[in-house]
Amino acid sequence: MTTQVKPNPNAPRPATVKADGGKSASMKAMVFVGPDEIKLKDCPKPVITAPGDAIVRVTQTTICGTDLHILKGDVPTAAPGRILGHEGVGVIDSVGAAVTAFKPGDHVLISCVSACGTCEFCRKQMYSHCTTGGWILGNAIDGCQAEYVRTPHADMSLYHIPEGANEEALVMLSDILPTGFECGVLNGKVQPGSSVAIVGSGPIGLAALLTAQFYSPASIIMIDLDDNRLEIARKFGATDTINSSDGKAVETLMKLTGGAGVDTAIEAVGIPATFELCEKLVAVGGTIANIGVHGKPSTLHLESLWDRNISITTRLVDTATIPMLFKTVAAKKIDPTLLITHHYKLADGEEAYETFGNAAETKALKVIITT
Amino acid sequence: MTTQVKPNPNAPRPATVKADGGKSASMKAMVFVGPDEIKLKDCPKPVITAPGDAIVRVTQTTICGTDLHILKGDVPTAAPGRILGHEGVGVIDSVGAAVTAFKPGDHVLISCVSACGTCEFCRKQMYSHCTTGGWILGNAIDGCQAEYVRTPHADMSLYHIPEGANEEALVMLSDILPTGFECGVLNGKVQPGSSVAIVGSGPIGLAALLTAQFYSPASIIMIDLDDNRLEIARKFGATDTINSSDGKAVETLMKLTGGAGVDTAIEAVGIPATFELCEKLVAVGGTIANIGVHGKPSTLHLESLWDRNISITTRLVDTATIPMLFKTVAAKKIDPTLLITHHYKLADGEEAYETFGNAAETKALKVIITT
Amino acid sequence: MTTQVKPNPNAPRPATVKADGGKSASMKAMVFVGPDEIKLKDCPKPVITAPGDAIVRVTQTTICGTDLHILKGDVPTAAPGRILGHEGVGVIDSVGAAVTAFKPGDHVLISCVSACGTCEFCRKQMYSHCTTGGWILGNAIDGCQAEYVRTPHADMSLYHIPEGANEEALVMLSDILPTGFECGVLNGKVQPGSSVAIVGSGPIGLAALLTAQFYSPASIIMIDLDDNRLEIARKFGATDTINSSDGKAVETLMKLTGGAGVDTAIEAVGIPATFELCEKLVAVGGTIANIGVHGKPSTLHLESLWDRNISITTRLVDTATIPMLFKTVAAKKIDPTLLITHHYKLADGEEAYETFGNAAETKALKVIITT
Amino acid sequence: MTTQVKPNPNAPRPATVKADGGKSASMKAMVFVGPDEIKLKDCPKPVITAPGDAIVRVTQTTICGTDLHILKGDVPTAAPGRILGHEGVGVIDSVGAAVTAFKPGDHVLISCVSACGTCEFCRKQMYSHCTTGGWILGNAIDGCQAEYVRTPHADMSLYHIPEGANEEALVMLSDILPTGFECGVLNGKVQPGSSVAIVGSGPIGLAALLTAQFYSPASIIMIDLDDNRLEIARKFGATDTINSSDGKAVETLMKLTGGAGVDTAIEAVGIPATFELCEKLVAVGGTIANIGVHGKPSTLHLESLWDRNISITTRLVDTATIPMLFKTVAAKKIDPTLLITHHYKLADGEEAYETFGNAAETKALKVIITT
Repeated sequence: MTTQVKPNPNAPRPATVKADGGKSASMKAMVFVGPDEIKLKDCPKPVITAPGDAIVRVTQTTICGTDLHILKGDVPTAAPGRILGHEGVGVIDSVGAAVTAFKPGDHVLISCVSACGTCEFCRKQMYSHCTTGGWILGNAIDGCQAEYVRTPHADMSLYHIPEGANEEALVMLSDILPTGFECGVLNGKVQPGSSVAIVGSGPIGLAALLTAQFYSPASIIMIDLDDNRLEIARKFGATDTINSSDGKAVETLMKLTGGAGVDTAIEAVGIPATFELCEKLVAVGGTIANIGVHGKPSTLHLESLWDRNISITTRLVDTATIPMLFKTVAAKKIDPTLLITHHYKLADGEEAYETFGNAAETKALKVIITT
Repeated sequence: MTTQVKPNPNAPRPATVKADGGKSASMKAMVFVGPDEIKLKDCPKPVITAPGDAIVRVTQTTICGTDLHILKGDVPTAAPGRILGHEGVGVIDSVGAAVTAFKPGDHVLISCVSACGTCEFCRKQMYSHCTTGGWILGNAIDGCQAEYVRTPHADMSLYHIPEGANEEALVMLSDILPTGFECGVLNGKVQPGSSVAIVGSGPIGLAALLTAQFYSPASIIMIDLDDNRLEIARKFGATDTINSSDGKAVETLMKLTGGAGVDTAIEAVGIPATFELCEKLVAVGGTIANIGVHGKPSTLHLESLWDRNISITTRLVDTATIPMLFKTVAAKKIDPTLLITHHYKLADGEEAYETFGNAAETKALKVIITT
Repeated sequence: MTTQVKPNPNAPRPATVKADGGKSASMKAMVFVGPDEIKLKDCPKPVITAPGDAIVRVTQTTICGTDLHILKGDVPTAAPGRILGHEGVGVIDSVGAAVTAFKPGDHVLISCVSACGTCEFCRKQMYSHCTTGGWILGNAIDGCQAEYVRTPHADMSLYHIPEGANEEALVMLSDILPTGFECGVLNGKVQPGSSVAIVGSGPIGLAALLTAQFYSPASIIMIDLDDNRLEIARKFGATDTINSSDGKAVETLMKLTGGAGVDTAIEAVGIPATFELCEKLVAVGGTIANIGVHGKPSTLHLESLWDRNISITTRLVDTATIPMLFKTVAAKKIDPTLLITHHYKLADGEEAYETFGNAAETKALKVIITT
Repeated sequence: MTTQVKPNPNAPRPATVKADGGKSASMKAMVFVGPDEIKLKDCPKPVITAPGDAIVRVTQTTICGTDLHILKGDVPTAAPGRILGHEGVGVIDSVGAAVTAFKPGDHVLISCVSACGTCEFCRKQMYSHCTTGGWILGNAIDGCQAEYVRTPHADMSLYHIPEGANEEALVMLSDILPTGFECGVLNGKVQPGSSVAIVGSGPIGLAALLTAQFYSPASIIMIDLDDNRLEIARKFGATDTINSSDGKAVETLMKLTGGAGVDTAIEAVGIPATFELCEKLVAVGGTIANIGVHGKPSTLHLESLWDRNISITTRLVDTATIPMLFKTVAAKKIDPTLLITHHYKLADGEEAYETFGNAAETKALKVIITT
């Protein structure tokens, strides 16, 4: 998930917890207290506020790079006081009157995107732009880094977990794997025998690397400034790696591709320098697929690209591929647990944030938090 | 066709005319003499230099905006002395030993793109990037604004004209209609019921307007600074027009589209201002299809586009759709003669250039030159 | 819509009207009484039985060929006592607790397909196979040929009619136009400049003919046994017509297509002879798009088709294109009223059935019934 | 490659060997002598007869199931006296005047399909229907089971072999792997996480099995009557196998797929029983991709398929994917040598035919013949 999502005026309001004489149930949750401050706090347990809601008892959740952006104050829709988190698995606690697909006790995966299923965008599987949903969890409404979470539009936004599945692995299907796959691999039109470059070997770039292999490209060239991350990339299936700190990434990649550039260049950082690098790496007829969250404009070198028959794509993850990803996990075509480096209890949630926030040192990719 | 095509090191060499004791045949041709200077001159008639060549006796040709760029010295591959022109119809005069699809006397349409048919790019119908062709006519080799022209890769680069066809109309299939259609309409994914904006109502924008109607979009909004051109656009089928000189084009278009923007925004000018306008006009999930030839970079506002699920495409015309366009002309689904505003004899070729070069005043779109 | 849909075990149950001491509201409706018998009867007004239901006061409805199949007893899911009809427009009377997109007084179009929006099939826009919907109206549950109808899954299955629209025209968007468009034109991959044959010039074949023109094919060849219908086809835009009663349809079409056959052959009858005719008409690389409802197997001549690179498609209409069709009607890209030949009051519903059932004589296409 | 290809009236004529006073070079070749009879014979070495021809010194070739059909007399275009074989690798011996991509000494792969590159079909990459090519090698003209072969349209029909490649492995790219991939996998739209059934576990079914894995389907269910072949299929990556000799294949597959059937059913046998089995296996919304060569019609159960939103495809291999397959082999995404079970010298070519013809006993898949 990504920062800077604008507030959705039609989005369901946060659950107003009914005052019931102090007897209202309480729970632990990770709360965005203020600039750079996240705290484990006691909060009221959420209640159903719309017929399509479900309350999920969260069993495992995780932290996203976007949560760090919220802490920095970069996401105006996420105000102080908000419970963070938009990823996780759990067990249905209760459902609203209109929920037909789930019942208490069902094990579920929570999508980072809430979707009504009926609006103009949902009908095109563009759930990220649902007129009453989208990315609201842990943003415009309280999120998953808690013992319980209210999930609007439950029929469309939760997924049954089959018995015996590795639930920890499935936490990677809430956001990071669909993001890498939809925004990077699908938009990038990765094909058998094609060549791929991924700029940025952080968790999201690695998610693109893992899911790109569904299509058997001939080469996946990983580019980053950090040798440790590039070593991980090689373990995850990159055919080549380039440390771009010497400023010769273009030259090196051109050598690797016989001067042609790559069919697919995936941007997985979110700054002008990396996007503009992709413009130089893409082959005639190729695609630049943007995953990164950008806070500034980039320079588009149309003077050299206008005649090169290229495509550039952007996308906010729709999580429309969660069902497909479920099948690939069950069939062992991908191992999501590769992305999991650390485990914490919710009680140690603040330490989990520290570890994740200090990834350069801790080498953290994804951090599982068990409630 | 468009300017700034890089020289192709593998391109067929210009025809070397054999010295035959002064008896070598001569012909009239429009020659790029030097900066801002085009002259009707006597030149040697071209001869076959490769087995795949054909010599075509040109009957009708036309002038392209790119020819004006050459005169300005913007196209380094087109050196002084070059016969200009990359569009036209004619009659086969002679063919090389390897030409199997044509014989002397055949009436043919000349594509602005020469294609070998067998290289990596031609196999993907990306003829514009043919490793021994592409846009070379009237650029790296002598062109069509002459009594005769040598056409390399004739089997792939000429098209039979059926008896009884309006040959003047077919001159529009050499370049301008495929460019509008391929780079604007196909890349822009125009669909029945969709909304389209075309920025730039010059000949190429109008070609996009005409061919967009193949797909029955609900609206085609034409944007330009010139009321005369917008009036023509309305006659050609635009559902709405916006004169953007008041700086309120975005506001006006958003009113027309209920605040959503357009599914397809086609850039048909080639400067940063118009490209960046398209960035503001495109709807969530939409496409910006670039036709314009850009000499400078644009600013890509990824900070507002990264999460809008859009595509941006560039393309140098491949003329791969000439056979399809032939069928639509024969079936009267499009009337290419709408684009033809003036007629000249080759003997008056210099006047034809003046008229075309001064379009703001003469209201010229395409100028037919008959040899 | 089409016959022989299997009963859906998960489909919502018919509305059980609450006994309220004889005071329950009553209405007029066309009821399938028994073999070949349809009667205008007094029936209880339907009530909401699920939170997603709406009750629509029907203002205009029509009769489908499938309704005649029900009368013949060909549709086991439609038992005697059933109110028929799956097409129409009306005004929202009341809505269930989970309906968010509609409120009483809204003018709506009723899709022939009810869709939950959340099941595996609905997420792929394959609404026809919705696990709790599909074609159930006027089939497994009571239908639209009545003063009121209960529509399940209202948020997904009704469409807002904008003020000032021609509502009679929009009745054609409930079933016949999406069927011709989705099963015939989209599945048949009709393209600008392509060649199309439509076998069967009844209402559904004509719907395919009208919507095929969205894509500007070069030719649409209509084939039927009835000269009157072929004359209508010419008025509706067919470029050629063939009366196949002389057994020479293949020969005639091959002459029209220079021996190649057609890119798209649309089957709009539903018997082996017409499907097998399509097998003979389709060009190398072409598509046979089946619309017809088949009661018997056909012979597939794989011994002549296996190496011809063809596709054959089947589809039950999903009505996923209703929003797109709305836009084309508003933009006057299609005139649905061309299909409407007769008008009746609901009080004369039995006569309307007679007229429609005797189309060979009455030349009826679609018959509007106003309540 | 497949039997029953009709004679192509425009196909290049067989090489007429110039009489040169008995000094004409001679070579060994496998000749179709008459019904069920193949002989190693002395034949004249082929010579260039068209400017686009190349003469290739064959180094390795193989036998196809189609060659056995020719021996049975099932392929009328292949007359007695014909040198058989349409697969192989070799070294360029000489080239015609119009050949630009190859020169003597180049190592090349020979496609089973000869393609001009310029006709209507070649421009759509439908090389199998090239108007002056298609499958003619070892059919309408002499083939590859010889020391030398004349290859028409050499620029489009041969492929450079990079130095150091395993040439034996590449013989599998002449026909069998592109056939399985194009007709089965691509036409069948195999996707990550999807379910696939392949009916027929012979060489071509196994080629589909190997190439289907490029797309990481969740399941590939192999169906055959022979347990040995099914065991091989499991080694090659089948997730499940069904021996259909008990008549319960449908029942077993439905259990494996939770009653849904498969997204892709690939027919790799070529008889009515196996095609009709595919009709029963395909899921709603799925595809039947035919690879088999059919001599008889099948029954198409439209009475049960008309409303199931399925596609059926046929295709004669175009070998358009040879460049893509080259890249996957180089990147070790597939190991073509898995298909090679036996090796022979050309001198023992008759024994090679016996081994291949008696596959049930010899367990032969593909037999390499070295010249």
